Amino acid sequence: MKDILITGGNGFLGQRLARELLRRSEAGWKTGHKPPDRIVLIDVARPQTGMADPRVRFAIGDAADPQFVRETLSNNTDGIFHLAAVVSSAAEANFDLGMRVNLDGTRTLLEACRRLPRPPRLVFASSLAVFGPPLPEVVTDATTPTPQSSYGAQKLIGELLVADFTRKRFVDGRVVRLPTVSIRPGKPNAAASSFASSILREPLNGQETVCPVEPDTALWLISPRFAVDCLLHAFDLPSQKIDARRPINLPGFTVTVGEMIAALERTAGAAALKRIRWQPDPRVGAIVGTWPARFETARAESLGFPRDERGFDGNIADYLNEEGIELS
Amino acid sequence: MKDILITGGNGFLGQRLARELLRRSEAGWKTGHKPPDRIVLIDVARPQTGMADPRVRFAIGDAADPQFVRETLSNNTDGIFHLAAVVSSAAEANFDLGMRVNLDGTRTLLEACRRLPRPPRLVFASSLAVFGPPLPEVVTDATTPTPQSSYGAQKLIGELLVADFTRKRFVDGRVVRLPTVSIRPGKPNAAASSFASSILREPLNGQETVCPVEPDTALWLISPRFAVDCLLHAFDLPSQKIDARRPINLPGFTVTVGEMIAALERTAGAAALKRIRWQPDPRVGAIVGTWPARFETARAESLGFPRDERGFDGNIADYLNEEGIELS
Repeated sequence: MKDILITGGNGFLGQRLARELLRRSEAGWKTGHKPPDRIVLIDVARPQTGMADPRVRFAIGDAADPQFVRETLSNNTDGIFHLAAVVSSAAEANFDLGMRVNLDGTRTLLEACRRLPRPPRLVFASSLAVFGPPLPEVVTDATTPTPQSSYGAQKLIGELLVADFTRKRFVDGRVVRLPTVSIRPGKPNAAASSFASSILREPLNGQETVCPVEPDTALWLISPRFAVDCLLHAFDLPSQKIDARRPINLPGFTVTVGEMIAALERTAGAAALKRIRWQPDPRVGAIVGTWPARFETARAESLGFPRDERGFDGNIADYLNEEGIELS
Repeated sequence: MKDILITGGNGFLGQRLARELLRRSEAGWKTGHKPPDRIVLIDVARPQTGMADPRVRFAIGDAADPQFVRETLSNNTDGIFHLAAVVSSAAEANFDLGMRVNLDGTRTLLEACRRLPRPPRLVFASSLAVFGPPLPEVVTDATTPTPQSSYGAQKLIGELLVADFTRKRFVDGRVVRLPTVSIRPGKPNAAASSFASSILREPLNGQETVCPVEPDTALWLISPRFAVDCLLHAFDLPSQKIDARRPINLPGFTVTVGEMIAALERTAGAAALKRIRWQPDPRVGAIVGTWPARFETARAESLGFPRDERGFDGNIADYLNEEGIELS
């Protein structure tokens, strides 16, 4: 028996990842690890639309509770995707909650891994939020992270824990720093970057939305599809190819909010733009404004991580396709 | 009433710092903060030779115990020097102890600061051990730390906690990365760099010692006197001059073990060299070999941190002078 665990497994990225893991297993997943016999989705709440697959199990509980985590991991635990997090605006507003879930939760998971007979392979989803001013024009693999949000600081501490637990051979860890993921389906969340999905998603769904930043705000983006591909690529990489102590800045692309809106207009017409109300929110700007928007990701590319060459129109096309939306 | 607290206050650096604080207070400490009314030395054990000064109080307990730390801090707490640590070889040999003291201890202290009515000023003594391979020829203020020891990882996590607690205005923190301090008086300790003092100290005291590394091993050193001066300079710096989010690599100088031994011979004659037995210890080499030996410390110098221009003969002269040793 081989289990793959996904923390934050009921979140949108966890769900997509689980579906893709099942799909690749059926297709005869060749690269790297053997396909899992079971996928365990760990989260605080059961999803509203459960995944009706006999290979999927749910473990509902608090990922920062050592006993729950120990009971959820087993000798069958072969791989872990650690996605669970209190996102940026929430961690800034509730410092203690962010520390508990983002720092203690990661440490608890690593401690549980350490107690298994074989060190499981673990992919830690970090974030571009580890970076902050002073920033160079273009962030490279050599840029030192200086987080300017509690979320970024907690993610960076998590990176260091994964690195040291990997060095001690308690776990086979690898760390990827995700760009802002857009277009996320579903509802807005407590990420400062939530608008990067909602200013597209809501108008495409015929709903009103608020854009809390200026049109010239630049973002470093990745589509959900490429985010999942990158997480799986990180999992598949042979241990000896990856220096787990050096987190990997994932490929993405730079786009301004104005360019995103222009792509929306190209796809959905001028009417869609009228559904966006522009109302700057200094709390959002104070976090998003510290994030870099331009990267050079040579190391990720040399390790074979896929790069999306389509530009933001591709993200919109993916969203419409995946959600089954047909624009009239 | 103003208290200054020193964690690890019964260690050699804590003791020297306390004495220098008392001396400067008597001399009419002008720069920066007002002189303290009281110095509180926090440590796990009472020193064998107590400091008989009415301004000095001892707080004996576990710096990672939240209740003890909360009880030790008070509304009078105006400044803190956080020196307490499980040192490098000990943290590598006992992972849990290092995590508890170096990570939990720092967090516990910061949480206690957060609960005070005024954020105290805090100097966190970090270390060159936050750096590790891959390293440039010369470490600069832009070099990204990639620790290759649990001690280094825990110190770096401490830096990030101090930075985020400072950003949140829970504390007025500043972080300095100390070079290896030599010549420490007293006995060898569990630091991998302990030999950098004992290969001088023991021969100067007429005792035998073992050198666990090769003569061409290069080190980045600071004398105890300059280490204390730098800690006090960090404390004195006005908050607005220091960007607490960017730790400061302290000035030091590069010297090889062979050059240190040559300086010993110049001072104490060839007989002293016979007291050194050369016996490489791979456990020491595996930690010390990952530390950088060459730095460019432009930022520290622009902030006015003192630089020792005397070379290693100065360290030997200081040691003989401070210990009252007269070589025949």
